[in-house]
Amino acid sequence: MEAERTLDEEQLTQLGEVAAQLRVDSIRCSTRAASGHPTSSLSAADLLAVLISRHVRYDWAEPGNRANDHLIFSKGHASPLLYAVFKAVGAISDQELVDTYRRFGSRLQGHPTPALPWVDVATGSLGQGLPVGVGIALAGRYLDQLPYHVWVLCGDSETAEGSVWEALDKAGHYGLRNLTVLVDVNRLGQRGPTELEWDLDTYRRRVEAFGCQAIVIDGHDLAAIDDALGRARQATGPTVVLARTVKGKGVPEIENKPDWHGKPLKPDLAERAVDALGGVRQIRVTGPQPEPAPPTGAPAAQPLELPRYDRGAKVATRNAYGDALRAVGVRPDVVVLDGEVSDSTRADRFTDAHPDRYFEMFISEQQMVAAAVGLQVRGYRPFASTFAAFFSRAYDFVRMAGVSRADIALSGSHAGVEIGADGPSQMGLEDLAAMRAVQGSTVLYPSDAVSCAALVAQMVDRKGVNYLRTTRGGHPVLYDNDEPFPVGGSKLLRGGDDDRVALIGAGVTVHNCLAAADELASAGINARVIDLYSVKPLDRERLLAAVRDTGGRLVVVEDHYPEGGLGSAVLESLADLAEPFRLTHLAVRGLPTSGTPTELMDQAGIGVSAIVAAARASV
Amino acid sequence: MEAERTLDEEQLTQLGEVAAQLRVDSIRCSTRAASGHPTSSLSAADLLAVLISRHVRYDWAEPGNRANDHLIFSKGHASPLLYAVFKAVGAISDQELVDTYRRFGSRLQGHPTPALPWVDVATGSLGQGLPVGVGIALAGRYLDQLPYHVWVLCGDSETAEGSVWEALDKAGHYGLRNLTVLVDVNRLGQRGPTELEWDLDTYRRRVEAFGCQAIVIDGHDLAAIDDALGRARQATGPTVVLARTVKGKGVPEIENKPDWHGKPLKPDLAERAVDALGGVRQIRVTGPQPEPAPPTGAPAAQPLELPRYDRGAKVATRNAYGDALRAVGVRPDVVVLDGEVSDSTRADRFTDAHPDRYFEMFISEQQMVAAAVGLQVRGYRPFASTFAAFFSRAYDFVRMAGVSRADIALSGSHAGVEIGADGPSQMGLEDLAAMRAVQGSTVLYPSDAVSCAALVAQMVDRKGVNYLRTTRGGHPVLYDNDEPFPVGGSKLLRGGDDDRVALIGAGVTVHNCLAAADELASAGINARVIDLYSVKPLDRERLLAAVRDTGGRLVVVEDHYPEGGLGSAVLESLADLAEPFRLTHLAVRGLPTSGTPTELMDQAGIGVSAIVAAARASV
Repeated sequence: MEAERTLDEEQLTQLGEVAAQLRVDSIRCSTRAASGHPTSSLSAADLLAVLISRHVRYDWAEPGNRANDHLIFSKGHASPLLYAVFKAVGAISDQELVDTYRRFGSRLQGHPTPALPWVDVATGSLGQGLPVGVGIALAGRYLDQLPYHVWVLCGDSETAEGSVWEALDKAGHYGLRNLTVLVDVNRLGQRGPTELEWDLDTYRRRVEAFGCQAIVIDGHDLAAIDDALGRARQATGPTVVLARTVKGKGVPEIENKPDWHGKPLKPDLAERAVDALGGVRQIRVTGPQPEPAPPTGAPAAQPLELPRYDRGAKVATRNAYGDALRAVGVRPDVVVLDGEVSDSTRADRFTDAHPDRYFEMFISEQQMVAAAVGLQVRGYRPFASTFAAFFSRAYDFVRMAGVSRADIALSGSHAGVEIGADGPSQMGLEDLAAMRAVQGSTVLYPSDAVSCAALVAQMVDRKGVNYLRTTRGGHPVLYDNDEPFPVGGSKLLRGGDDDRVALIGAGVTVHNCLAAADELASAGINARVIDLYSVKPLDRERLLAAVRDTGGRLVVVEDHYPEGGLGSAVLESLADLAEPFRLTHLAVRGLPTSGTPTELMDQAGIGVSAIVAAARASV
Repeated sequence: MEAERTLDEEQLTQLGEVAAQLRVDSIRCSTRAASGHPTSSLSAADLLAVLISRHVRYDWAEPGNRANDHLIFSKGHASPLLYAVFKAVGAISDQELVDTYRRFGSRLQGHPTPALPWVDVATGSLGQGLPVGVGIALAGRYLDQLPYHVWVLCGDSETAEGSVWEALDKAGHYGLRNLTVLVDVNRLGQRGPTELEWDLDTYRRRVEAFGCQAIVIDGHDLAAIDDALGRARQATGPTVVLARTVKGKGVPEIENKPDWHGKPLKPDLAERAVDALGGVRQIRVTGPQPEPAPPTGAPAAQPLELPRYDRGAKVATRNAYGDALRAVGVRPDVVVLDGEVSDSTRADRFTDAHPDRYFEMFISEQQMVAAAVGLQVRGYRPFASTFAAFFSRAYDFVRMAGVSRADIALSGSHAGVEIGADGPSQMGLEDLAAMRAVQGSTVLYPSDAVSCAALVAQMVDRKGVNYLRTTRGGHPVLYDNDEPFPVGGSKLLRGGDDDRVALIGAGVTVHNCLAAADELASAGINARVIDLYSVKPLDRERLLAAVRDTGGRLVVVEDHYPEGGLGSAVLESLADLAEPFRLTHLAVRGLPTSGTPTELMDQAGIGVSAIVAAARASV
């Protein structure tokens, strides 16, 4: 289709001035910082000039306005351009831009983070901003039902990430007409040409095959950009604007040169470039404003009634997860995602009750976690589930959710060798280590259905990345229904003044510890049993008491590899303790195989007899 | 193109019999195990019957034959079919198949692992077998230059994984005509219909847009399968055979039924089904054999000359990685991969010297790690590099490499807050935790260029997943060039009989510990300094001596989040120690920002003054 040219000369001139200002400011701030990515900013300056002047509906003075569009720089390294945009719209001052970019204490960090109120999520790990944008667009189309639009700027290099295709696939599948992706096809990656360079036709065919409208334009033709963005907003599905651009555009000495990635211009070159671009400007862009959002008419939540279980009944914690999820679904802000295994994770128990707040992500765990991050941008409380092992597929997304300070809940089922016959590919055995290491995370691992349900209820309102580990098999309910399970707490399941050893477990190993304690008791050895259902934060007081009361004899048992899991959490917590203690650490030290849960736990040395032996050896 | 029908009736009948046997055996073994995925096996039985009878060139009696084709079940849950194939070709007995499938102690695990000599890599985490196959095909086309072909069976559900598109993209880019992918489009995933169901045309357009030939067939038409596979082997590029199939095919009661994923047939239904399929067979398939491989004429390696550095010179360990990589490149089996950041990781120093053994993976870390796994299947020693933070993108692939017992070397650069202005998205701060938790892994973190080069040299021949963490900035060379750095060792940089505290670091924090020790010495406090360059395995003896000699006063300093890293490694190692000790753990406890390396290390409390304060407090 021929681009419609609706802009007059004066408008074009004005847009050109804005673009020049964005270029000038991108150069100035990065040169001053002696760090950053000016050339990757210059290539997209024309796209952004048109976008902010004529298409993004945003009340920059009120970033919390529910009706605002969303603008995400998936190519987070183009932060000079993003911050130049923020200056142009009056969100930040020229001085803040130029004097603080990339400096210690500044909110204008090397890559964008939500330390800035106009930034929804941290970017900088490529191929993540777009999948998060899909999550926001899901919220807009299906939950908020507001006309805001999600604009995502991607680099061309990042289209090599599979996550980009997971995202476009879901955008197409869910018909996200409120999503527009601008791909800055500047042909050059960090260390040389991209794989597809300027082969816009291949990009187009890929995008179309994945269910999105593609519009190919010259990314420096202001009228063509304007036309494309206008068509994108009116489209009946998601649109990808494929913009052929030149890296370093506007500074002829460095245009389209391969050795200019991530390098600021030296001061003399910067000065010449700024002069050639017409000097420093202080243009204030006033783009379109959002229509007022209707008042939020969300139905009030009904009272929460958590599922109840009979003590001693064998209930898998994954089942309790599903039951509790369904129960917390009375909250209209609770939204659930799953990676095509909801009948295993039991997320389907939510879906049956609240189908309008469930999004099937099929087998794309990266997109699933990203969608959760996007949904929480819009204030929802997402729960995303898959097998514990398969969250490793999305680990970079979980890591970045931590950097974004996103509030999300993740539930990993089928943890440990306890799953049995499926074998090691399906066993989450490193998830506690990985999830604990995420900044600001909470890690929970309940041993029974009651505690699981109580923890799920708390996850709804917790900050940060919250990870719940559930178990495949049914194990006895240990607690009364109204028992509280505060995050950061623990439970004393057996204990008295004459305990000679403390058996410490979480999840399935709590049951093994109880059986071991019974066996030890019949041999005259009193063993304390502690259920550390809150792996992070950890109940240090309970551990200190155990050290004190048992003469420092601890046995930690976990269905996890020995590195970084429950044992490490206990050790980290007690590292600076003055009183001496010895900790016997039972964990899965070899590569597991198939077998029954009992066979595999015994083989790993985390079964009842191994715990008894360890306790005996310690006393 | 109309399928050529070259098979006569007798051949078709024979193939039908083989297919029936594969179905019968898939049912028998899973019903006996009361576990497994028969329906996902039945859909692909015809594809495999034709493949093994007429296309896979494999000497099943000699799985180590270099000329053998490769057969990978990316849909690893179809293990009943794979093991039925192994029975059909005489690799395993009917008894082993039926009596041991999924049982404890059996090599016929729930999902395939290389415990079986005909299995190259563990599968079961979907979307991984294909990317690994791309790695094997890279070796075949560019390194071995042998005519073996790589056949990968994928499920349709797993095409939702972005990694599948990373793989097809690379297959197209590298023109891997020795790769054929069979997609078993049976329309049903685990919990219901797949996203695209039987929309073969969309699959076709996606595959073609990603640079591969697509052939759409009825996956139960034996002649069409045969024609497609024959064309695939003759193709000038990679081929994807998109086979429309029926889940549960051959057992009318369960054909195309959504509730039959991952469920074995009950014995009575199994019996009826086997009867209807013509009963148990013991057909022995003799497929095509590989042509004899020419003798390996690889050039003998020249003597290794590691780079040499001047003590005190400031050299980044990433630079030493690049230098050492170039040096070990005298070994003709060393192959290098990078995720489009080789000028940052310094892998480009290898590339300059050995361009024929470098594969650019662009920004697709999952495919990069998978390609490394594939290359080691063929006996190569792959080194793959990106920023430490971005290995989190491939964590599931690293995890599965552990399950595969793959021998690979990974190098993560730009670790920790030391990188400075780029901010937290680029900082590897959870990599030690994640990599330590991988089964059988080795984790190395050198503090200087000499030790880094020495460790790289050892990584060439080490088993398992080997991870090297390197630092962005230049720091003084600490060691003499011929100093040995055994994996599992450590170095005592300062120390004597009257040490009152031990400062323990790795990587960049070793330098901070040295400066702190100097400051403490001038205040009359003797501090021992230990360089724990081998994070896993750890030098426990050195730590025991430090506890003994200092009265148990340890300060561990790491540029990593506090969970699961160096501090945890030390604590795990000393957990059961009888002598008491107190460990002060200095780590990055908040979310970092941008700044200079020194500003950020000071802010995190891992700088010199924090170490001095911790040491003073401990004595």
